Amino acid sequence: MKLDKTRAENLPLVREALGFGQVGSAARHPVWFMRQAGRYLPEYMAIRSRMEFVDLCRSPKDAAEVTLQPLRRFDLDAAIIFSDILVPCMALGQTLTFGKGHGPQLAPAMRSREDFRALKRPDVAAELGYVGDAISLTKSQLAPGKALIGFAGAPFTVATYMIEGGSSKEFTATKAMIFRDPALFADFMKLLRDVTVDYLLMQVRAGADALMLFDTWAGNLTPDDYARHVWPVTADLMATVRESTGVPVTYFSGQGSDRILELGRGAKSDPATRKAFDVLSVDWRVRIPHAARLVKEAALDVALQGNLDPQVLIGPEQLVRERVRSIMEEVHAARSAGLIHGHIFNVGHGLLPHTPPEALSWAIDEVRKQSAQGASNP
Amino acid sequence: MKLDKTRAENLPLVREALGFGQVGSAARHPVWFMRQAGRYLPEYMAIRSRMEFVDLCRSPKDAAEVTLQPLRRFDLDAAIIFSDILVPCMALGQTLTFGKGHGPQLAPAMRSREDFRALKRPDVAAELGYVGDAISLTKSQLAPGKALIGFAGAPFTVATYMIEGGSSKEFTATKAMIFRDPALFADFMKLLRDVTVDYLLMQVRAGADALMLFDTWAGNLTPDDYARHVWPVTADLMATVRESTGVPVTYFSGQGSDRILELGRGAKSDPATRKAFDVLSVDWRVRIPHAARLVKEAALDVALQGNLDPQVLIGPEQLVRERVRSIMEEVHAARSAGLIHGHIFNVGHGLLPHTPPEALSWAIDEVRKQSAQGASNP
Repeated sequence: MKLDKTRAENLPLVREALGFGQVGSAARHPVWFMRQAGRYLPEYMAIRSRMEFVDLCRSPKDAAEVTLQPLRRFDLDAAIIFSDILVPCMALGQTLTFGKGHGPQLAPAMRSREDFRALKRPDVAAELGYVGDAISLTKSQLAPGKALIGFAGAPFTVATYMIEGGSSKEFTATKAMIFRDPALFADFMKLLRDVTVDYLLMQVRAGADALMLFDTWAGNLTPDDYARHVWPVTADLMATVRESTGVPVTYFSGQGSDRILELGRGAKSDPATRKAFDVLSVDWRVRIPHAARLVKEAALDVALQGNLDPQVLIGPEQLVRERVRSIMEEVHAARSAGLIHGHIFNVGHGLLPHTPPEALSWAIDEVRKQSAQGASNP
Repeated sequence: MKLDKTRAENLPLVREALGFGQVGSAARHPVWFMRQAGRYLPEYMAIRSRMEFVDLCRSPKDAAEVTLQPLRRFDLDAAIIFSDILVPCMALGQTLTFGKGHGPQLAPAMRSREDFRALKRPDVAAELGYVGDAISLTKSQLAPGKALIGFAGAPFTVATYMIEGGSSKEFTATKAMIFRDPALFADFMKLLRDVTVDYLLMQVRAGADALMLFDTWAGNLTPDDYARHVWPVTADLMATVRESTGVPVTYFSGQGSDRILELGRGAKSDPATRKAFDVLSVDWRVRIPHAARLVKEAALDVALQGNLDPQVLIGPEQLVRERVRSIMEEVHAARSAGLIHGHIFNVGHGLLPHTPPEALSWAIDEVRKQSAQGASNP
């Protein structure tokens, strides 16, 4: 897939705006927040009061509106398209519902070879075209200099929902498949990889400037199971999209984002790992200095993203500013020591519905202040 | 607190039987399983069919019976007293119930200074005497050479349940307290520390040969919050009990057990950390070689416990044996390299209700086989 000339020429600007390996040249330290469009914003709730969540994902006009809401309120450097990592499961033939008081539910659960055969092999552009339309619409309304991020769930994380039939604590059905029928699990991961490649390419075609892959539950596996059953297909997915589009890719593995770096350290010569991503998004359980050290040891040419505990935003202004300052100082030190190239300020996991919107203003203001004072982009 | 002469003389035997730093002299590689007494055993379900969970915890005769059940079925080296980490919350004045389909519920939730003042300051020996009685009764029926382990929830993990009023995913109320009223949180942790010290001393007095502290949710905090608000009081608790009784103490911090080791590495000279525990129980997210390396770097004189993913036990026999063998080989290598002294084979988290009992037999058999072949205790 080739980007048209204008977009190809704009790529370095996007990389710079998002702080990917452009130390010193970026005008400012990029900042955005995972789930920055969502339930903590009254203007989002106003739209949700008249439509269901899934319908909102499917309505390009409303999804674009919701995507842009936080950029009207806050001084953010990027928008991330409003959608859900489980949207592709519908194209694969499952029904997606969000019940009150419990999380997403997918039916029928994908548990057997028979279930696997029954899944649709979707024409992504046709079935998920509404996501592309939402991206195009958002892009046309987005101020110049702001990046638009497309995203997908990573195959493992999406697989857990499809196999369990929803959220899970113990991932019993998923692990039962990995341990009892690894060939079926591998085939399923391969299908999800293929669908996700198509899905992300479509998003870039529609106008996404950068991509992010969410592997929220990857941290629940043993490092060996992750290395064997998850990482190779995930790395291949990202490398394929990166090589095909030139668009920067961010990988987020929740609940211990240093695992992937431990893996990287053990696999310095693994070309797939080296080509897989531009940015590693780290959760708050990992210290930035620790992640930066591992990035260096693995000789990975990546930037870091993160990693404010989103719950810090329920604290008083002084605490919010202290915690932001502390992350900015850690980033500054890691950059000065040559451990990492770039950094994108973000939370270590999605914003929560009870987040007070003003807390984001304090955090962003503190990022700008620290950035101006040279705590970043030294 | 002084142990009587016989028990004091027996301590080295317990240490040896449990593999705490007695490389080469232990007759065999110790093995037990977290939650080895519980719902996966039909004989446990038979007792539960006639009484509620909380009543079972409160009945010394039944608790002792349930504690001993897995030792009749399996070749285990230790029993762990059947109880629940939330039992002390009742002595503190909360009502504990286990509803169908959801986890434990504690009422009223402990959210304010007023709630804190309203908590009882319990006479632990009087209010939780039934746990001591269950330990004495179990001890009198336990075969010689088998260790009896007492336990408690760590202050942070117990605090989360008491503050949230039950289980939690995001720990919003807990973090709100830490971030908005750290003085109240510190006072609460101090109260839980004091109650837990009394509770564990009582368990040793009643006959517990070793102790374990479960900090299941500690991994949800940022490393800095853990280091500031949780570890000092937790380390002090364990050091106090250890020094007072001489009984070995195991610390389990779930969801990334290497965090405590990262901390240890940064605090080599911290005397509280050095005196806090004898064994670190690691979950399955951490590789044994990684944990062993961190133990060495922190110059901690501890053994490791763990770390089979309990879900592996739903796999076929060959897989169970492979995974056990792999852990035993890692332990062997770490011991040969002088990184760790001892090791206790265990799961990385409690056994799950759907575990097939025969899988434990395979795992134990493989531990014995590997141990005999010199994969351990070289």
